[in-house]
Amino acid sequence: MTTRGWKVARQRPAHGSVRPGGRTARTRTAVLEAALEELGAGRYGGLTVERLASRAGVHATTVRRRWGSVHGVVLDLFDHVVEDVAVPDTGSLQEDLRLLLQGVLALYDSPGNRNLLARMIEAVAEHPGGAEVMRDFFAARTRQVAVLVERAAARGEVPRGTRAAEVVESLCAPVYYRLLVTHQPLGPGAADRLAAITSRAARAGAFT
Amino acid sequence: MTTRGWKVARQRPAHGSVRPGGRTARTRTAVLEAALEELGAGRYGGLTVERLASRAGVHATTVRRRWGSVHGVVLDLFDHVVEDVAVPDTGSLQEDLRLLLQGVLALYDSPGNRNLLARMIEAVAEHPGGAEVMRDFFAARTRQVAVLVERAAARGEVPRGTRAAEVVESLCAPVYYRLLVTHQPLGPGAADRLAAITSRAARAGAFT
Repeated sequence: MTTRGWKVARQRPAHGSVRPGGRTARTRTAVLEAALEELGAGRYGGLTVERLASRAGVHATTVRRRWGSVHGVVLDLFDHVVEDVAVPDTGSLQEDLRLLLQGVLALYDSPGNRNLLARMIEAVAEHPGGAEVMRDFFAARTRQVAVLVERAAARGEVPRGTRAAEVVESLCAPVYYRLLVTHQPLGPGAADRLAAITSRAARAGAFT
Repeated sequence: MTTRGWKVARQRPAHGSVRPGGRTARTRTAVLEAALEELGAGRYGGLTVERLASRAGVHATTVRRRWGSVHGVVLDLFDHVVEDVAVPDTGSLQEDLRLLLQGVLALYDSPGNRNLLARMIEAVAEHPGGAEVMRDFFAARTRQVAVLVERAAARGEVPRGTRAAEVVESLCAPVYYRLLVTHQPLGPGAADRLAAITSRAARAGAFT
């Protein structure tokens, strides 16, 4: 099972778990899969801890103890899904950016997956602490991806002093802007186009 | 009253209205103000047509006839607020972009206003036709703003063939990305920084 196809990987250990495949990991997998199925079916407003627990075959108190609420589950699901986009290393900044963005676009290729994103934003607006969870997650994720830009600087492809986090933001922001705000179609050439724009801008020193 | 301060302008005619200040316009103003106050107070889930109508001092049937649902009101409010950001003409692309972005940032300067944005995204996800409303609105808005880039091309500041819509997207997308997804703070220098990045990229031909 792959997260790319939006199945939650059964073999994957929970965060902090030292027992891959153990009971805690199995519970997490079952609950996240249940949330994914509910969101994929477009059941937005009616999602409750009881429904999730019933679908996952666990006790509602287990869900409440671990995640606090439906919002906590949605944030954990988002974290689980996004963190699996691979960080490429091809020797070319533009190609690395293109492959990275292809991974991001693949995540949002179905209505169910876009629903998860919209639901996550709603969860953050309503769930105390949700914004902080997202901020910490994306800060860590951006640091992880920034290595692409640091490698390009070491190769002399972009000026030294290029701010890697801003390059990553420039690449990814238009995807979320279109999905959430402008609803313009991204189209099959989106990864090529946005990677070309960002790498040309970076080479020209726009991010120094 | 100004929309910049998130009051709905009382004197402003409704879309398609030929009677500025007439009853239709007054009803719209009252209902949009009621929605703004409810959203500003963080009342997300509980917003109903009845509550809006009661707060606005109109009949619920009037709200239903005109907007269909709470979601219809939220989309109309968003349209009303965003369309009022001024399109500057200073003779410099970077300065025009900076001023334009300052207007956008001013819109989202309070939690209540950011709530409107999150609620609008939720409305689009749940309301049939909502995505189309947003797509048409932003396509028209982008064409309107694109004149900045066309003027810069005419002055020779950016290469001919620069795709204006992509310049506007590059400028604005990081604002929405931070507000909705990464929750990184935008900070007081955001307009300067993002205008500098986009204008440098445009001058370097990244959008051709």
